[in-house]
Amino acid sequence: MNEKVTADFLAHSASEVFLPVSNGYRILQHGYVAALAGRVQAVGEGDTAGNVSLLPHATVLDCTGKTITPGLVDAHTHPVFAGWRDDEFELRIQGAQYKDILASGGGIMSSVRKTRAASEDELLCNVLSFLDEMLSSGTTTIEAKSGYGLDLQSEIKSLNALKRAAESHPVEIVPTFLVHSVPTEYKGNRSEFINLVTDVMIPEVAHSRLAEFADVFCEDGVFSVEESRTILTCASSYGLKLKIHADELESTGGAELAAELGAVSADHLIRASDKGLSAMAARGVVAVLLPGTPFFLMSDERARARFMKEQGVTLAIATDFNPGTSPTTSLPLVISLACLRMGMTPGEALWSATKGGAMAIGRDHTVGALEPGMQCDLVVFDCPSHRHIAYRYGVHLVDQVVKRGKVVFRKTKGVTRQVR
Amino acid sequence: MNEKVTADFLAHSASEVFLPVSNGYRILQHGYVAALAGRVQAVGEGDTAGNVSLLPHATVLDCTGKTITPGLVDAHTHPVFAGWRDDEFELRIQGAQYKDILASGGGIMSSVRKTRAASEDELLCNVLSFLDEMLSSGTTTIEAKSGYGLDLQSEIKSLNALKRAAESHPVEIVPTFLVHSVPTEYKGNRSEFINLVTDVMIPEVAHSRLAEFADVFCEDGVFSVEESRTILTCASSYGLKLKIHADELESTGGAELAAELGAVSADHLIRASDKGLSAMAARGVVAVLLPGTPFFLMSDERARARFMKEQGVTLAIATDFNPGTSPTTSLPLVISLACLRMGMTPGEALWSATKGGAMAIGRDHTVGALEPGMQCDLVVFDCPSHRHIAYRYGVHLVDQVVKRGKVVFRKTKGVTRQVR
Repeated sequence: MNEKVTADFLAHSASEVFLPVSNGYRILQHGYVAALAGRVQAVGEGDTAGNVSLLPHATVLDCTGKTITPGLVDAHTHPVFAGWRDDEFELRIQGAQYKDILASGGGIMSSVRKTRAASEDELLCNVLSFLDEMLSSGTTTIEAKSGYGLDLQSEIKSLNALKRAAESHPVEIVPTFLVHSVPTEYKGNRSEFINLVTDVMIPEVAHSRLAEFADVFCEDGVFSVEESRTILTCASSYGLKLKIHADELESTGGAELAAELGAVSADHLIRASDKGLSAMAARGVVAVLLPGTPFFLMSDERARARFMKEQGVTLAIATDFNPGTSPTTSLPLVISLACLRMGMTPGEALWSATKGGAMAIGRDHTVGALEPGMQCDLVVFDCPSHRHIAYRYGVHLVDQVVKRGKVVFRKTKGVTRQVR
Repeated sequence: MNEKVTADFLAHSASEVFLPVSNGYRILQHGYVAALAGRVQAVGEGDTAGNVSLLPHATVLDCTGKTITPGLVDAHTHPVFAGWRDDEFELRIQGAQYKDILASGGGIMSSVRKTRAASEDELLCNVLSFLDEMLSSGTTTIEAKSGYGLDLQSEIKSLNALKRAAESHPVEIVPTFLVHSVPTEYKGNRSEFINLVTDVMIPEVAHSRLAEFADVFCEDGVFSVEESRTILTCASSYGLKLKIHADELESTGGAELAAELGAVSADHLIRASDKGLSAMAARGVVAVLLPGTPFFLMSDERARARFMKEQGVTLAIATDFNPGTSPTTSLPLVISLACLRMGMTPGEALWSATKGGAMAIGRDHTVGALEPGMQCDLVVFDCPSHRHIAYRYGVHLVDQVVKRGKVVFRKTKGVTRQVR
């Protein structure tokens, strides 16, 4: 018989507690999670009286009829930008092609112009509002990329906005320096821009400790595999961990490069080759799949999630939140899309939005699961089974969100029922 | 110069006010909506001081940076049921066919069994919780169908639950008696069930005034065009207005039947014939399109919205909320789907979820627009343009909802920002 654990936080009586483990998940019924000082102490089924000793003033959540999952981990977001691109969205519906939108000054360069023009405080304000949305959707940890600055000052400003946001918001941020595109002013001289990245920007970002990862948009017409290798090899030499935007639109060998360099993740992968995927599996590179993006781009293409899983690739799913190709902050909806468009089961999709996400950002020792010693980051969903998170597509089921043992979001009904 | 209007409600300074009109919409900038005793008195742009005289204790909403639309009208829902079918959802992802699910006792018959077994109070409780979800998504009026009872007592129980829900909840309900399927106990004797419908159920429903519309599931393997004609002709003779579930899975002539009988709407229409659609246009039958349903059924098919519009058919969009094929209550997400999967622009989709929805349920004289004299049902979305409602897919942008001039939903942020 175990000794009782001491706790200052207890969520109990949940219909289900969804517990990711290395290669799958367990479901506890009538389950509880107990924590002390922000760390999980115990999880279990049934009555807690014999197992948990509560401190005075402990936070106690009765989760009857509800489902507990680890806090969601969104492993791929671009939340530092100014200006929306809803006008382009309408043009695309009416048949405009991205290259036409780019040619008329829209697309990513519109975001770059507005982000460069914005103050750090404005960017901070935007990031905080997005973090509020994410938290209310159950996300407690995100990876967040710079990449709409494309010059030293604007990239540093973007990363500083992330740093300040992390200091004042419960959502935990893993910052990434993203080499997103060649800016307009270097269009005739790509190699000069790449030199700027490797000789000035990466050293400065690494020195200021503003990013933990480096990422590059490796794609036909953006950065070639060779250019991406140059940039990432440099970043690695400065101690940054690696990510790659790989094989989203064309199969260029991004997955292979991720494996070659030992990147922590390769992301998108809609057109990744069989060879690239098996190299990723062999090297332990996590695949971050972004099913919202082709959905929003009105493409029928999708990453081969089932095939990747069969090859032994670890799968994460994420929102790709950005103003051009995926303006959603809702990981629950992306869980639905992973099921409906990539054939993942609700449990697999949820695993990939928790444990898988944590692995994709090198945080699986602290978040993405609910094992004793890990951070007590969890979501109470107002539904009787984890399956509902995918099944009830578009419905906001998040009831409460807990970060490090503290309730940081609480849904209030807000509806006035009245006899008319 | 106009005289000032007197108002006890004013929403002002909105970035946009989206105003559906008969054949399209107008956008007011820096707009306001003024109402008295639940009815719109005036809409306009700019400063209200010269145009609106506020009563003491008037409700005043500052909508700076926000978008006002009419309350959303969900013209096709099935909210009276007990039990979920998330288990079937997981089976379908794994490749199960609906006929196999039916054969193993699942599918609609699982909902029928549980709905028959539920008390009226249980059904009422379920309906109220769905209405809460809908209201928090911006829906202020719904059409709601019975149809999981399939016997007199259970259908009356279902319609009574709707009646009681309407009496205690701000969401306005237009009730429909739906002949949904032949129940198991009549499988060998369809004509006896149809006689029961026409000789007992329709007279009782009409006599008790529990439904305003009758609807039938006209589809291969459910009710034939001939059976549907029999049922709907009978319903019409009792004064019920008509709707038809038409041509969802096969082109059976449901659209043609809707035109022949002068139905108010024909719904689904994924396989509707050109001839049926032009007959609908000629007769003024509204097409209710349900893009969530094929999305959730993992089908690439979709209704031909653009073609229908070119033919002169009036288009509504709706959730089809039900536990089997569309478990969402979110009309905003359906607006996104209408754009992404049927090529509607955000403005067209929003028109179809307001004015079009109201036309599909015969309520366009009171709801679905914001003209003087109409009910002051409106939504304040926390976004600068109506386009965001479609563009920011899956994000809960509803800030406040007003029904008959009263605030009935208010989003509270619920997020605790804190320095860690």
